[in-house]
Amino acid sequence: MENKKTRGSLIIVTGPSGAGKGTVLGKVLSELDNVYYSISATTRQPRPGETDGVNYFFLTRERFEQMVERDEFLEHAEYVGNCYGTPEKPVNDMLEKGFDVILEIEVQGALMVKAKRPDALLVFITPPSFGILEERLRGRGTEADDVVARRMSKARNECAHVDDYDYIVINDALEDAVRDLEAIIRAQRCRRGKKTVIFD
Amino acid sequence: MENKKTRGSLIIVTGPSGAGKGTVLGKVLSELDNVYYSISATTRQPRPGETDGVNYFFLTRERFEQMVERDEFLEHAEYVGNCYGTPEKPVNDMLEKGFDVILEIEVQGALMVKAKRPDALLVFITPPSFGILEERLRGRGTEADDVVARRMSKARNECAHVDDYDYIVINDALEDAVRDLEAIIRAQRCRRGKKTVIFD
Repeated sequence: MENKKTRGSLIIVTGPSGAGKGTVLGKVLSELDNVYYSISATTRQPRPGETDGVNYFFLTRERFEQMVERDEFLEHAEYVGNCYGTPEKPVNDMLEKGFDVILEIEVQGALMVKAKRPDALLVFITPPSFGILEERLRGRGTEADDVVARRMSKARNECAHVDDYDYIVINDALEDAVRDLEAIIRAQRCRRGKKTVIFD
Repeated sequence: MENKKTRGSLIIVTGPSGAGKGTVLGKVLSELDNVYYSISATTRQPRPGETDGVNYFFLTRERFEQMVERDEFLEHAEYVGNCYGTPEKPVNDMLEKGFDVILEIEVQGALMVKAKRPDALLVFITPPSFGILEERLRGRGTEADDVVARRMSKARNECAHVDDYDYIVINDALEDAVRDLEAIIRAQRCRRGKKTVIFD
């Protein structure tokens, strides 16, 4: 019954803007071993302090389009004139090494990855209500009314895909949401474990 | 997106004798809310200190057989002349109230319940190796060699059903096994959560 190292799990974390994905994930990543946070590729310019291969893989548009043609992205999209995508190779390499790989991506991309990789776990992080989401978006104080309205409408669409998600984490109290996401990753290791139990 | 109270999950915890099911469960039950530990029924006599409705439901054989005829057990078996069974009604009542219900039962019964209730989670708690299992069984110091041999042979059969289990918890370090089982229950609440999210 020795436990052999096997492939990790692909875990997609998504949810509406303002749900607190980044905060929840930051805490989970600092507390769990053997988890790799996937780095996206983008054609946008690095901002001051951003490092290639740490914050993003910064690519020319030519290189990005080449990768699209070669089907080297798990998902990709264009957003206000810049391209963003999840390169598939580093994800597969880390899974192969036994790491659980986390993709923190937009709902649209998340659904694309899940369709392509049905074995992936799709986790949706949501605020406890649309009212609270709106408060949080306004609370940032940086968003104009029309931006908030657009984000709210987008959030309603994203929540409509609830049946496609494997797990829902309600981010009401941050500490609970962190423990929920940790539990999902830990439980998945026990599920996968059944393939790694070897009877001596 | 309000979280409404819904039906709990049925969680079957099984594994070979000597795997440490009871110890792991004791810790998990003391740390988690909204969990109900199912009480078995038996025709055997109460031992000193045992209370009806706490340790077991103590039944006459006549009453037990009546319940068998009425199909009122999730599973039942005879063991050295006494009958043991899991009454279905209290399980369903507690699930209905939103509790997660834990059945700690033998592998044979666990497989019967899983066949009857495919929505149940079947968790197998196992020692890290057969060698360690044998040490643990001998370590009790109370078992004759032939009893240990019989238990080891039974354990090997039980481990052969590995594909039927939803989750495997390897009880090597107790604290890790406790956290694994807690994670499985907690993650299941997020899975179920998707049916309880109501969009306002």
